[in-house]
Amino acid sequence: MLVRHKGNLRWENIPILAYKEEGGCFKDITRQILFEGSGDIPCQLRYFEIASGGHSTLEHHEHLHLVVIVRGEGHVLIGDTIHSVRENDVMAIPAHAWHQFRATSDKPLGFYCIVNVERDRPTRPNQDDLKSLCRKPEIAAFIRS
Amino acid sequence: MLVRHKGNLRWENIPILAYKEEGGCFKDITRQILFEGSGDIPCQLRYFEIASGGHSTLEHHEHLHLVVIVRGEGHVLIGDTIHSVRENDVMAIPAHAWHQFRATSDKPLGFYCIVNVERDRPTRPNQDDLKSLCRKPEIAAFIRS
Repeated sequence: MLVRHKGNLRWENIPILAYKEEGGCFKDITRQILFEGSGDIPCQLRYFEIASGGHSTLEHHEHLHLVVIVRGEGHVLIGDTIHSVRENDVMAIPAHAWHQFRATSDKPLGFYCIVNVERDRPTRPNQDDLKSLCRKPEIAAFIRS
Repeated sequence: MLVRHKGNLRWENIPILAYKEEGGCFKDITRQILFEGSGDIPCQLRYFEIASGGHSTLEHHEHLHLVVIVRGEGHVLIGDTIHSVRENDVMAIPAHAWHQFRATSDKPLGFYCIVNVERDRPTRPNQDDLKSLCRKPEIAAFIRS
């Protein structure tokens, strides 16, 4: 019922997991599951942390992400826009919007991410998607894939 | 899509609301709605802040609360147990558990609270409930009603 923070964005009895169970293009990112979904809250609460220089996978999917930045600063691509983000910024990543988080400062980028327990699998970009995304030079320079 | 934090746990274009639309026994508490629920996340994300010495309403309801402490320290009654809580502690408040937050330190107690968009109305304690709760002297001393 109570998940105690033990400092430095680590919690008692919560394992630090790999970002994903399977492969994909990502770098220096961990995952902790703080709430598995229960009753009328059919959502997981996860905490992700990207080490400086790391990034999440560039992907899209039907399910939404609700993200709250907890520590650090970084950038996120959502759709065709790159946003700088920092502590306590809140964002909803819409269905099928391409997205990728990067820890672009010299500190880790940590964030809570809420998703439905039942969700579709992500789609990664194919060559046509990448070509389309890279029409904007700033996106071409930003994405890691 | 992006709700920017403007500092001090206040967000751009997010009004600071009364804790509740209607009466009840509470003190020095504000509410900001950061996400209204959308798509497959049928939940609101709210930020509540209780000034030092203040408290939320003592109540229970069918719907769950998922709470993440964001700033400060305080205490929370959940069911028949009082917990001390502080930054980044995470808790799920089960259906029909009596609960009340109190900002018992000299700083505000701020927390995110996730609830389903569709939820039942809270029940406040009647005299019998209070009598039952107050069988434990520490709860009798803790609750504000």
